[in-house]
Amino acid sequence: MAPYKVGDNDVKLYGWFEIIIDGYFAHVYVASVTFNERQIWFEDIGFGIDTRNIFMAQEYVEKMCGAVDGALAAMEQLEGGAMANDSERRMVGHYWLRAPHLAPTVELRKDIEKTKKNVQIFAADVLNGKYAADSGPFTDLLCVGIGGSALGTQLLLGALADASAPLRAHFLDNTDPEGFLREFATLENHWERTLIIVTSKSGSTPEPNNALRAVEWLLRTKNLALAERAVAVTCTGSILDKRARDESWLQRFPMWDWVGGRTSVTSAVGLLPAALSGIDIDQFLGGAATMDRLTRAKTRNPAVQLALSWHFATHGIGAHAMVILPYADRLQNLSRYLQQLVMESLGKRHDRLGRVVCQGLTVYGNRGSTDQHSYVQQLRDGLCNFFVTFIEVLRHGDIQRDGSLRTAAEYLEGFFLGTREALAAENRQSLTITLRQVDAFSLGMLVALYERAVGLYAEFIGVNAYDQPGVEAGKKAADRALQLLREVEKFLKKIGKKAAEVDAETVAQEIGQNNAVENVRKWLDFLRMNA
Amino acid sequence: MAPYKVGDNDVKLYGWFEIIIDGYFAHVYVASVTFNERQIWFEDIGFGIDTRNIFMAQEYVEKMCGAVDGALAAMEQLEGGAMANDSERRMVGHYWLRAPHLAPTVELRKDIEKTKKNVQIFAADVLNGKYAADSGPFTDLLCVGIGGSALGTQLLLGALADASAPLRAHFLDNTDPEGFLREFATLENHWERTLIIVTSKSGSTPEPNNALRAVEWLLRTKNLALAERAVAVTCTGSILDKRARDESWLQRFPMWDWVGGRTSVTSAVGLLPAALSGIDIDQFLGGAATMDRLTRAKTRNPAVQLALSWHFATHGIGAHAMVILPYADRLQNLSRYLQQLVMESLGKRHDRLGRVVCQGLTVYGNRGSTDQHSYVQQLRDGLCNFFVTFIEVLRHGDIQRDGSLRTAAEYLEGFFLGTREALAAENRQSLTITLRQVDAFSLGMLVALYERAVGLYAEFIGVNAYDQPGVEAGKKAADRALQLLREVEKFLKKIGKKAAEVDAETVAQEIGQNNAVENVRKWLDFLRMNA
Repeated sequence: MAPYKVGDNDVKLYGWFEIIIDGYFAHVYVASVTFNERQIWFEDIGFGIDTRNIFMAQEYVEKMCGAVDGALAAMEQLEGGAMANDSERRMVGHYWLRAPHLAPTVELRKDIEKTKKNVQIFAADVLNGKYAADSGPFTDLLCVGIGGSALGTQLLLGALADASAPLRAHFLDNTDPEGFLREFATLENHWERTLIIVTSKSGSTPEPNNALRAVEWLLRTKNLALAERAVAVTCTGSILDKRARDESWLQRFPMWDWVGGRTSVTSAVGLLPAALSGIDIDQFLGGAATMDRLTRAKTRNPAVQLALSWHFATHGIGAHAMVILPYADRLQNLSRYLQQLVMESLGKRHDRLGRVVCQGLTVYGNRGSTDQHSYVQQLRDGLCNFFVTFIEVLRHGDIQRDGSLRTAAEYLEGFFLGTREALAAENRQSLTITLRQVDAFSLGMLVALYERAVGLYAEFIGVNAYDQPGVEAGKKAADRALQLLREVEKFLKKIGKKAAEVDAETVAQEIGQNNAVENVRKWLDFLRMNA
Repeated sequence: MAPYKVGDNDVKLYGWFEIIIDGYFAHVYVASVTFNERQIWFEDIGFGIDTRNIFMAQEYVEKMCGAVDGALAAMEQLEGGAMANDSERRMVGHYWLRAPHLAPTVELRKDIEKTKKNVQIFAADVLNGKYAADSGPFTDLLCVGIGGSALGTQLLLGALADASAPLRAHFLDNTDPEGFLREFATLENHWERTLIIVTSKSGSTPEPNNALRAVEWLLRTKNLALAERAVAVTCTGSILDKRARDESWLQRFPMWDWVGGRTSVTSAVGLLPAALSGIDIDQFLGGAATMDRLTRAKTRNPAVQLALSWHFATHGIGAHAMVILPYADRLQNLSRYLQQLVMESLGKRHDRLGRVVCQGLTVYGNRGSTDQHSYVQQLRDGLCNFFVTFIEVLRHGDIQRDGSLRTAAEYLEGFFLGTREALAAENRQSLTITLRQVDAFSLGMLVALYERAVGLYAEFIGVNAYDQPGVEAGKKAADRALQLLREVEKFLKKIGKKAAEVDAETVAQEIGQNNAVENVRKWLDFLRMNA
């Protein structure tokens, strides 16, 4: 392979260009664009990245050429079907979801294509009333799922599902009974016409299972059948899959072991709720596929620029946090989506050689200019422990409807420019991603851009981006805690007393858990508080 | 004053206690509580803090005694009316809002008391229909405000305003026209019965002003008058105050220069929307007043424990970030509220002696156990650059309604215990705040606790917690950017051309802004994109 090119080859373009936007020809004028590796603008897709406020010298970039080449080669292997997830011995194939012809086998390709088609058919049938409740078409959509089974959907629907969306979306993404009851209250009188998607890769994650059980209880109180309004997204053969089949749920859509939860938004996990919300999933997948192509390139590769920026800004050890500041309300869920994608992928104890490295890259942020009235004071004046990712959106919807909307848009852009300048003036680093507009295509680009950048950066620092061993330890500790609760309850039953009538030390001793007095006390508190 | 006491004086309590909850007598059993400075539980108010997983040695705490004494003394002066905000020469009096008798003058006391009473009268009159739209009682509440004029309200309403709240709340807290239009769409057909609160201390903040202009446009299209449904919360004599008076808006409520935006939730800023949402503001203020009393104390002071924990965990220089992890969906807006309160207060360039210190304390987080399926992988295995604040809630609402709700609650507690244990096992520090339940009283406690801890910590590190000089620089840079837009537009008008017909270099040269070619290009892009 030719080495990665880092030259500052300025190319200037002026004049009218004919481009295709959403299938229509359009003429756009490129006033003057300077092309080089640090400031890239793709006029045809309306996407740009500008990393010039990451203050890396050309020497640094050149020094990283070998690492970039290695990372690109590793990504090529990954896309070819190499076993990348060592700890779980599985392939990493989320790239195939938007380019099925790249899948390593014909079966996989067909499976991907068929699933996408089934999503579209099912969504169309729900929206045209073929699948409907007894009293009429579905009006509400209840998404049950957590982590990777929720965050991508929340990103998509938060950005694109407006009040006019065909279904009103709700989420159960925790195991908090008060949270369930609050969401249930917003569904009151709508349950009969609520479509329920249960998303769980393994089918055995406690949070969605608890949420589903609560939903079943609620449906029973309304005398409504779950199977008539439920859909499952899960791995074929999982306990959830079997149940959905046995009970004849409306539909089942497959997940695959080669799609990680945090990179599953271009699978049925994200596509199904998106399609049901009227989002054009072909555009979304097209945006992702387009960015995948761009980010395989040897030059003008936005993901390389992004990963290099992270590496330089954080000294390759996560020394600075990534602040995500989209100047667009539609992108308010982006930071939470990226928190999972980036932190769960890069936050690792060991590198691939087994050395303890305790790596990571912290992500937080909400929206501009809202956050300027919150923590930007610290960013500009205080701790220099971050770099900002500005997301700039050029086109602001219907602002010609009134001057006040236009003024608002001017201020939004002005605040972005002002804040970026004020930060740079104090040597606070930033990079800017520019989108022509927020739509399904640009969201696909963003998703694929960050997936690729995470993959490249993981190669730079030598960690496996595709496992999450640390999550297991918390689960095991939680299982132990819940096991302790069972023992406490059993003991109380045996001695015929209530939690309020015993003390933790005695109980701990009696059940042979002297080292767990604190947790015994917690459970006794729990029992007396929630009697 | 007696010095701050740090002794580990264990006191054990067992038995039944008679306490008052929400005005009712209740009997509660305290199974076994160990009282010392690192693990405090106040049974009467259902509040506790446990900092034992912040691994500070007793020697460290003792070394800090002088600093604690100094900080408590400084807070005493502040509460007495000292000029604390040097850069703006004003008092800092948010503590008086929940204890008006502490206000330094009778006029202030009366003003505070009158305002709270007026809030309650107005809210009651809206809810009982005395203030109403032509077609009936108000159904929706539109809150226009940004930063401190939004985050506290979002915390309160996010926690306590359920689907059964008397008014459905909406927020305009940015200057994004697409954000406005999306929120407007959710109000379609409800505008006639929408009550609008415009909150702006100075009355001249661009974001709420732009939002208000957009609202006025929308109301005009519906042939509805703003004044008949609008309320202002602003400093007396501000441009907003004058306008509301001249146009006879429904009501005006005062802000005061001695209440900072980020500590204004116990003023009309937070109280008015809370009362309109059916939240008991007396309970909220009572919780804050109670915590104020506790956090003035020489012993068992939760705010001292909190500030000491921050100081130890971050080496007094913000070296670790504060991760806010409430195991309660109701508290999902807490981290954003604290981002402003903590980061805007502590993120300062200079200390009080004028030395450059670049201080701060980064805050992020969402909810447990949801975040366990996101970034907790990094917290446990990766970068050790944080400490977690767990918020534990003991009572889980209506879980006796069904076993599935009870199971969900058990898992929520189990996941909290498991995650805390798994982090501690890897020497990741954490502290735990325990609330008996999420209600108006406990939210008041949380607000006051963090206000006090921020004040104490600011004293430890010697910065002024009550100004925000860095925000100004961004505003000025934004003003310059907007001024540039005006010049570009003027020039285009003069030469009779459109943005698409010129190039940035030429325009920049013609208007004498050669150093601003980049921003000229940005504005030309803006103009051609939004023509």
